[in-house]
Amino acid sequence: MLQSKLIGETKKEWPNEASIKSHGLLLKGGYIKQMASGIYTLLPLAKKVVSKIENIIREEMNNIDAQEILMPLVATKKLWDMSGRYDSVGSELLRFKDRNDTEMVLSMTHEEATVFTMLNEGKSYQKYPFSVYQIQTKFRDEARPRAGLIRVREFTMKDAYSFHTSKESLDKEYDKFFNAYNNIYRRVGIKEVIAVASDTGMMGGSGAHEFMLLCDAGEDKIVVCKNCGYSANMEVAYTDNIETSTKEENSLEKISTPNIKTIEELHEFTKIPVNQIGKAVIYQRLDTMQTVIVFIRADREVNETKLRNLLNIDDEKLVPKKEEENDNITYGFVGPVNLNANNATIVYDISLKNEKSLVFGANEYDYHLKGVNISRDVGEVKYFDVSKVEKSDYCPICHKKELTISNGIEVGNIFKLGDKYTKTMQMKYVDENGKEQTPIMGCYGIGVGRLMASVLEAKATQKSVNWPVSIAPYDVHICPIDYKKNENVKDISNKIYNNLMSQGLDVLLDDRNKSTGVTFADADLIGAPIRIIVGNRNLVNNSVEIKISGKDESILVNIEKVTDFVKTAREELLKEVN
Amino acid sequence: MLQSKLIGETKKEWPNEASIKSHGLLLKGGYIKQMASGIYTLLPLAKKVVSKIENIIREEMNNIDAQEILMPLVATKKLWDMSGRYDSVGSELLRFKDRNDTEMVLSMTHEEATVFTMLNEGKSYQKYPFSVYQIQTKFRDEARPRAGLIRVREFTMKDAYSFHTSKESLDKEYDKFFNAYNNIYRRVGIKEVIAVASDTGMMGGSGAHEFMLLCDAGEDKIVVCKNCGYSANMEVAYTDNIETSTKEENSLEKISTPNIKTIEELHEFTKIPVNQIGKAVIYQRLDTMQTVIVFIRADREVNETKLRNLLNIDDEKLVPKKEEENDNITYGFVGPVNLNANNATIVYDISLKNEKSLVFGANEYDYHLKGVNISRDVGEVKYFDVSKVEKSDYCPICHKKELTISNGIEVGNIFKLGDKYTKTMQMKYVDENGKEQTPIMGCYGIGVGRLMASVLEAKATQKSVNWPVSIAPYDVHICPIDYKKNENVKDISNKIYNNLMSQGLDVLLDDRNKSTGVTFADADLIGAPIRIIVGNRNLVNNSVEIKISGKDESILVNIEKVTDFVKTAREELLKEVN
Repeated sequence: MLQSKLIGETKKEWPNEASIKSHGLLLKGGYIKQMASGIYTLLPLAKKVVSKIENIIREEMNNIDAQEILMPLVATKKLWDMSGRYDSVGSELLRFKDRNDTEMVLSMTHEEATVFTMLNEGKSYQKYPFSVYQIQTKFRDEARPRAGLIRVREFTMKDAYSFHTSKESLDKEYDKFFNAYNNIYRRVGIKEVIAVASDTGMMGGSGAHEFMLLCDAGEDKIVVCKNCGYSANMEVAYTDNIETSTKEENSLEKISTPNIKTIEELHEFTKIPVNQIGKAVIYQRLDTMQTVIVFIRADREVNETKLRNLLNIDDEKLVPKKEEENDNITYGFVGPVNLNANNATIVYDISLKNEKSLVFGANEYDYHLKGVNISRDVGEVKYFDVSKVEKSDYCPICHKKELTISNGIEVGNIFKLGDKYTKTMQMKYVDENGKEQTPIMGCYGIGVGRLMASVLEAKATQKSVNWPVSIAPYDVHICPIDYKKNENVKDISNKIYNNLMSQGLDVLLDDRNKSTGVTFADADLIGAPIRIIVGNRNLVNNSVEIKISGKDESILVNIEKVTDFVKTAREELLKEVN
Repeated sequence: MLQSKLIGETKKEWPNEASIKSHGLLLKGGYIKQMASGIYTLLPLAKKVVSKIENIIREEMNNIDAQEILMPLVATKKLWDMSGRYDSVGSELLRFKDRNDTEMVLSMTHEEATVFTMLNEGKSYQKYPFSVYQIQTKFRDEARPRAGLIRVREFTMKDAYSFHTSKESLDKEYDKFFNAYNNIYRRVGIKEVIAVASDTGMMGGSGAHEFMLLCDAGEDKIVVCKNCGYSANMEVAYTDNIETSTKEENSLEKISTPNIKTIEELHEFTKIPVNQIGKAVIYQRLDTMQTVIVFIRADREVNETKLRNLLNIDDEKLVPKKEEENDNITYGFVGPVNLNANNATIVYDISLKNEKSLVFGANEYDYHLKGVNISRDVGEVKYFDVSKVEKSDYCPICHKKELTISNGIEVGNIFKLGDKYTKTMQMKYVDENGKEQTPIMGCYGIGVGRLMASVLEAKATQKSVNWPVSIAPYDVHICPIDYKKNENVKDISNKIYNNLMSQGLDVLLDDRNKSTGVTFADADLIGAPIRIIVGNRNLVNNSVEIKISGKDESILVNIEKVTDFVKTAREELLKEVN
C-alpha cells in the first residue's frame, strides 16, 4: 500500500475528547471516526487490526470444534419474552417497532437467539456436546458510552454457546474455552491478561470468569492476592478476615447525639474513629417489599452484588430504601441493640464479627449507644461477607494479608449458564433411556474492538502504538528519506517494496512528500513492527536501516539481504506471541 | 468435520413455506433458520459458503485498491437529514429512538455515512481517486420479505464507494468495478450474470448498471435483444419503434357509449380490438399538485419509472390521480381531441405515434370518438417513450424485432452518483489551483446472502445443491457405506479423511449410522464437489469410488492414490471458475 493513498489522516494534536490512551491514539492515528455517541466507523488501519484479531479468534474457536454461524442483530420481543429478559433487562436493551408495529429489539447478546436456533438441532443426546460461535454486530444502548472503543453502543463481538447433557461435560468445555481464551490473549500480544472469578449478573448461571487486563484505564476493580494468586472482580471478591479495630470490651452507654445522623457528624461529635463506629444501610426488596437492614462497620462499604447474591435476588430488585413516615424506622439512629423491626431481614457483615466495642444507633431519635458488643448485647448472630474487600483484608484462600486492588478492563468473559435459558425456552433432548431432558449451556464472549483498544492500553505509549506483530496493520513500513527528491532513494524503496510484497508481506511505503519528523511520527502511529529507513547516508554503503519493534538498536542491512532479513525478523517476532 | 457433529439437521420433506428452489434447499439442507419475517440465522454450512463468497469479493475489491472499512448499522436522523433522505425515503428505512430519545435509523445503505466519514479525508486533490468498501450488516424494513434469502430485512452487503475529481476518473473507476463484479460472478460460479442498464432510483446519479442472473425466480423483468445484446431492466428499457395497429385513416365520428368507462367495456361494446383504442392514464404530482395525463395505446402499460424520469420527479411524488368532483376531468371519457385541461401536463406515448385511427374518449360523459388521428385532429405533438417495452417491439439499438423479456435476480448494482451526496453534505477538496471543489462519487453493491441463494437458483436441482467448487462448504465429502458396521470401511475412511485434512482440504466425513439412501440424499444437499464413496465392494480391489461434480461417471481410484487424485481434480474444477 502506498501511504499517499491510505485513508485515515493522522492528526497533529492529541485529541481533546480522548479520555484514555487508546482512545487518543485511535483518533490521532486515523483508525476510527466517531459517527454518534458510542458509535464508530473503523477506518482501514483499524479494520486491518480487527480482521487479524478476528482471524486469531476464529482459529482458536475452530480448534476447539466450535462451529461458526451468524445470527441476526434484530430480534423480536417475542423471542426475548421466551426467557423473560424483555422485561427484566433495563433500557440498555434497545426496543423499537418495525413498520408493522411488531415489537423488536437490537440484540445485545444472543442466548435467546442461540437456544431458538438450536431447538431442532439438539434433539438426541448423541449430538452433544456441541458449540457454536459467531463474530457479529451487537448493540447495547449504554447510558454513558466512554473511552473510545472501550465502552461503545454498537460493537462486534465473538460470542459462543455450548450445549451439554451433564455438568461434567460443561466443566470440560468450559476449560477448553478457558484455554482458548488464554491462547487468544497471548496471540494478540497481551498474555498478561488474568482470569478472575466474576458475578454471573443478568446472565444467570453457576460460575463465571472474566478475563482482565490490569491497567489504569480499566473501569472494573480487581482484587488479586500477591501471595497465592487468588483473583476476583471486586463485585464478588471475598475476604477471610478483616482486621478488628476494637479489641477491648466496654460497658454499654447511651449517649445523647441530637440531630447527629451521618457517620461524619457522629465522628466529629464524638471524636471516635470511623472504624470504631457501626452503621446500618437500609434497602428495600422490590419483589417482596421487605426491608433489608445491613449492619456493617462504618469505614466499610456494602458490596451490593454480594448482598444480592446472598439474598438470591435479581439485579434492580434491591434498592436503597427511601425514608417514609410511619414505617417504624428511626432513620439515622438504627442499631442492632433493641431493634424492633418485625418483617425486616437483618444482615450482619463480617466486619463486625470480632469487634468488642462499637458505636451504633440506639433505635431512638437523637441517641446512640457506645460500647456495643454484638454477641453480648444482641446474642449469637451469623455474619456474612457483604462488604467491599479492602487492601488491608486477609486473602480468603491463603489467609495472608497481601491483597492488591487494581483497575482492569474486561477483555472477555465465560459463564456456566446451566439451564437458565434452555429451561425457560423448553429446549429438550432425548437421553439414552428415551427420556426427555433439558440440556445445560455455557456462554463465552470477547468484544473485538475493545480487545484492540486494550492491546493499546497495554503496549502503547502516548506517541507510539507498538502493535504486536500478530495484529499490526502492516508487517513492514518503508520510510524513505526524500522519496520525492532523491531518485536513488525512490528506486531502492520501490524495489524493496515490490520484493517484500511478492513474498506475501503486508507492506506500507511512505511515498508522501513529508519531513522526516512527520514520516517517523506517523510511522509510530501506524506501528508496523519492522521499519525500514531508506536514506542516502546508508545507500552509499548499499545499506538500509532496519528497526525491529522491541529492540533498542536499529541494524544496517545490505539492500540485497533485506527480504531475508525481514522474513527472519518477522518469524522471530511471531514466536514471541505464538 | 465429522458429520455426526455438524449443526444443521437436514429435513426429510420439501419445506412448505419455500416459494423458490433456493429457499427450499437452504431450509431442507439445514443452511438457514428463520428467526422472524425476513430475518435469518446462517447455520454452519451457509456461514461457510458465505465466508468463501466474502473472501472472493474481498480479493477482487483489494485488487482494484478499494480499502476495507467498517461503518456502523445504527445511524442518527441528523446524518440522514444531511442528504434529505430521512424525509424522502419511505418506511423501508427503519426509524426509532434510543434511550435518550435521539432519533436514529437502521442504515439500509451507507452513502451518508461514507461521505461523513470521508469529510476530513479527501481534502486535497492529491488523495483522489480513492475507494472504500465494507462487508457489513444492513437492515431494510421490506413490506413483503420473500423467497428465503432473496428478499430479506437484515442482510450482509458488500458496499463500496469511490470518490473523484472528474467525470473521467469516475468513468474509469466504474469500469474497474464493472470488471471486478464480473470476476466475482465468474469466481462464485455464475458467469452467466449479465449487466443491464438500470434506473438510478432513490440513489440519484447519472448512470447505473444492475448485474442480473436471468432465472424464473427473479422478480425483476429484463429486456434483452437476441440480435445485438442490448439489455436493460424493464424499468428503463426503451424501444425504437412499436408496430402500428391502425394503418388506414378514417373520419372522426362521435359515438354514444353510455356509462362505458373501461377499456374492456369499450372493447365489448364496440368490438374494436384493444390495440386500436387509446387510453388516458391520469396522475397527480405531489410536488406541484399538477395533473399529468398520459395518452397511450390501450394494449400498452405506462412505465412509471420512465415517466418519472421524463418529468424529472422523485419516487413517491407521482401518484395515480383520485377522482375528485369539480376538477374538470371527464373520468372514463378523457381523450386528446377537444381536451380542456389547463394546467395539466399532457404526455403522448410513442405507441400512438403512427396510428391513423384510434378510439378515444370524447371529453364528454358517455361519448367516445372513433377515427382519431392525433396529428390531424390535435396537431403536431411530441411523442415520448413512456410505455413498458413488449417482446414485439423494435430494439432501440439494432432496430431488429428480437427482444426477449426474462425474469432476473439482481445480484449487484453499480451507480454513478455524481455529486448528489457530496454536494448536499458539503464535502470539499482543494484543487490544483487552490480552489474549493465538490468531489463526485460512485457506489457499488452486492448482497452476499442473495448471491449465495442466486447461485442455487442457477446451479441446483430440487434435490442437489451443486455448489461450484469455489464456494462449496466442503471440498470433499467422504460417504462410507456401513461405517459403523464394517471396521475396514471405517479404517480406510478415517485414513483418507486424515490424509486429506492434512493437505489443508475442507473435508466432511459421514460417520453417522444412516442408510445409503439418506447418506447420499444428505450429500446432495451439502454439495461438496468431490464425493468419495468407501464401500466393501470396491475395497476388495483396494479402491474407492470418486464422483466429481459435473461429471456423469464416477471413477474407481486406488486408495493409495486418493489424495493426489482429489488434489488434481480440485485444481481442475477451480480452473473452470478462475
